[in-house]
Amino acid sequence: MTKPVRLALLGCGTVGAEVVRLLHEQAADLTARVGAPLELAGIAVRRITRDRGTLPVDPDLFTTDALGLVKRDDVDLVIEVVGGIEPARTWLVEAMRAGKSVVTANKALLAEDGGTLHDAAAEGGADLYYEAAVAGAIPLLRSLRESLHGDTISRVTGIVNGTTNFILSAMDATGAGFTEALDEATELGYAEADPTADVEGFDAAAKAAILASLAFHTRVTAADVHREGITEVTAADMASAKAMGCTIKLLCIASRGPDSRGTESVSVRVHPAMIPVSHPLASVGDAFNAVFVEAAAAGQLMFYGRGAGGAPTASAVLGDVVAAARNHLAGVRTPSESSYAALPIRPMGEAVTRYHISLDVADRPGVLAAVAGVFARHDVSIATVRQASASAGPADGTGPVGRGGDAILVIVTHVAPDAALAATVEELRGLEIVRSIASVLRVEGGSR
Amino acid sequence: MTKPVRLALLGCGTVGAEVVRLLHEQAADLTARVGAPLELAGIAVRRITRDRGTLPVDPDLFTTDALGLVKRDDVDLVIEVVGGIEPARTWLVEAMRAGKSVVTANKALLAEDGGTLHDAAAEGGADLYYEAAVAGAIPLLRSLRESLHGDTISRVTGIVNGTTNFILSAMDATGAGFTEALDEATELGYAEADPTADVEGFDAAAKAAILASLAFHTRVTAADVHREGITEVTAADMASAKAMGCTIKLLCIASRGPDSRGTESVSVRVHPAMIPVSHPLASVGDAFNAVFVEAAAAGQLMFYGRGAGGAPTASAVLGDVVAAARNHLAGVRTPSESSYAALPIRPMGEAVTRYHISLDVADRPGVLAAVAGVFARHDVSIATVRQASASAGPADGTGPVGRGGDAILVIVTHVAPDAALAATVEELRGLEIVRSIASVLRVEGGSR
Repeated sequence: MTKPVRLALLGCGTVGAEVVRLLHEQAADLTARVGAPLELAGIAVRRITRDRGTLPVDPDLFTTDALGLVKRDDVDLVIEVVGGIEPARTWLVEAMRAGKSVVTANKALLAEDGGTLHDAAAEGGADLYYEAAVAGAIPLLRSLRESLHGDTISRVTGIVNGTTNFILSAMDATGAGFTEALDEATELGYAEADPTADVEGFDAAAKAAILASLAFHTRVTAADVHREGITEVTAADMASAKAMGCTIKLLCIASRGPDSRGTESVSVRVHPAMIPVSHPLASVGDAFNAVFVEAAAAGQLMFYGRGAGGAPTASAVLGDVVAAARNHLAGVRTPSESSYAALPIRPMGEAVTRYHISLDVADRPGVLAAVAGVFARHDVSIATVRQASASAGPADGTGPVGRGGDAILVIVTHVAPDAALAATVEELRGLEIVRSIASVLRVEGGSR
Repeated sequence: MTKPVRLALLGCGTVGAEVVRLLHEQAADLTARVGAPLELAGIAVRRITRDRGTLPVDPDLFTTDALGLVKRDDVDLVIEVVGGIEPARTWLVEAMRAGKSVVTANKALLAEDGGTLHDAAAEGGADLYYEAAVAGAIPLLRSLRESLHGDTISRVTGIVNGTTNFILSAMDATGAGFTEALDEATELGYAEADPTADVEGFDAAAKAAILASLAFHTRVTAADVHREGITEVTAADMASAKAMGCTIKLLCIASRGPDSRGTESVSVRVHPAMIPVSHPLASVGDAFNAVFVEAAAAGQLMFYGRGAGGAPTASAVLGDVVAAARNHLAGVRTPSESSYAALPIRPMGEAVTRYHISLDVADRPGVLAAVAGVFARHDVSIATVRQASASAGPADGTGPVGRGGDAILVIVTHVAPDAALAATVEELRGLEIVRSIASVLRVEGGSR
């Protein structure tokens, strides 16, 4: 029998327990695929509790000394499923500097300080794998990192947060408001007790940074990502989207192209946006993830699957473990980080988007001319205008519009720099004839 | 400057020319990603013609001596986009035995005799990459070959032939018959002058063999694949599918599971089948490809994109070239073929499917009892029966059924072994009360 590859597992929550279970259940297959058995050398946990006993593993493997475990001579590979910046970063840097390859699902750490991890991997000649950090079991990162390396990726558009997609899908299906849909998600276990990381878009922004780094061969961190969550998406917004043949999704959008000075640059943003129901991402329901990739030669590609959960995430972790273990046995490593392009990050104001704006306006002659004038001053071209009664039901323009009262103007623009669109909205807000701005949403997935 | 990696390109048709163009256009990026320039050492073509001059390449690189080119000492990697069994096999075996890695798009060769290629790769310590052989630019093979290696794949269901998907999508959209839709596909360049390989399912069967080999760690050849084309799919079949909330797709289906004696085995088949319009594969239109993968831990995954065409295929080829070139520089190779499982191939008769059967029957009492008796004798359970007038328009069961004349019985079964279903149909054919069997189609994508 070949000498086993010895694994240190850091963390034994939902994902870690599933990794332990799969290592046990699929031991024969994994051995055949790797060329040697995979053996757990130790499992670092915060507290050693009795209920670990249900896992198919020797209870003596548990330790609370993660750093000690990582440093042990009989550990070949380190799997980290703890999350968070510290102490995970210290453990992983220590492991890789010692030449031990790392498999991690830690999106927050990769997005905040991926550079430190990549540098440590290069220094120690170790592999750094993190397929599980984005879109769970969907084999997305290896595709960006290897399969598409002969191509030029222009844009990545994804639904990468299951919690928010569940909430928005529920709002679309039932007409519920955000709070109501969040409550349902919490009840069903799709949202955590503190849902901030999900609903405010932090989780999606971390993933967007990782995707952009791989797609554009450029170090992108979470701080480079423009981030807006879904807490302000209302039932009225969703109804308005549906009236336009759209739905609302929390999208992460990473694109490259020339900025206003013609410099090739990268724009990365996370925000709710309307997309046409005919767009492949529109039909991605519940807690599923999907990522749409556009490349010069490959054209349009889409990846779809479960983005979270113990088993899907563990599947991604183990795929990486097999690769890292094979490399360990062969004494080689996979290509390291590719960040040669080092493209500059474009500020959000220069991102090119379209806006959908609902205005509550005074219903009198000259209103449209005044409003249109504001758009023109900011060089924003209007694609469509619909006018509806403020009191009538659906804002479909068919309701009676009573002179002298209020009216709703629904305006969709052509593409323009986000700063020009934001400035337009600001100026509209100051107009006497504009009673209020009911909603502002970006529109994606159409012609750009 | 690092010493370049020298490439031999075998074939310079649509895909080859696109490879040449991308090598030229993306030279700086490819150099950065590989760590050394990629340089064409020669291009083998059948005939040296004047019009090659439009390619961004030295005309002196063209040669008609492919074998001589492959053997040259200054060639590091071989790219093959010629297709067919011989002489491609001889060239590639020769290359790999000499330690030169191969990137090929040759699905026919891989499906017929992949074993010989894999053996030559192992013998020479060379890499064998073939992402472009299945589903064009969709990064499917690397995902099966690496990302999902920590998981157990139970089923792969795909639309892997663009020509037939274009034809069936047209039949679904316009109600056209097969011949009419094929004519349109030919006119638009989606079907070749001789469409046999596509419409008879040979192309899809080759891809099915390659997918099954990777998914199940088992050598599967085209001869192991049960194959039926789409030439017998009629406008009436499509109408019948639509009446059931389905559409018809040419599916390749590779699955593993216990056979009738409980032996874990692999079933691989290509045939037209009804799938519910709600199934993710149903909305894959035009010449697009999509592959649906089900794995124990990962759950359901879907990959979608362009399956053919010069640029998408060249993107896949170049992704492989970058990987092979990096390995060449590092003096390593990727894991070779994984066929350790060596599962037996289950005969089609033991594949578990559902049937949709339209019968033209005499309209008199006792017919349904007689027909149902045949199903019962073969242990095939009926899921639904609809009865419609033979002359009325849509077979939706609402038409008037005149006693004494003919009636149409539309029967959908529960899952059963294909042999039992086929025997049922055979016995029905012999019944006096069955005037004719209007259509028999398998039904997939529902509960199994």
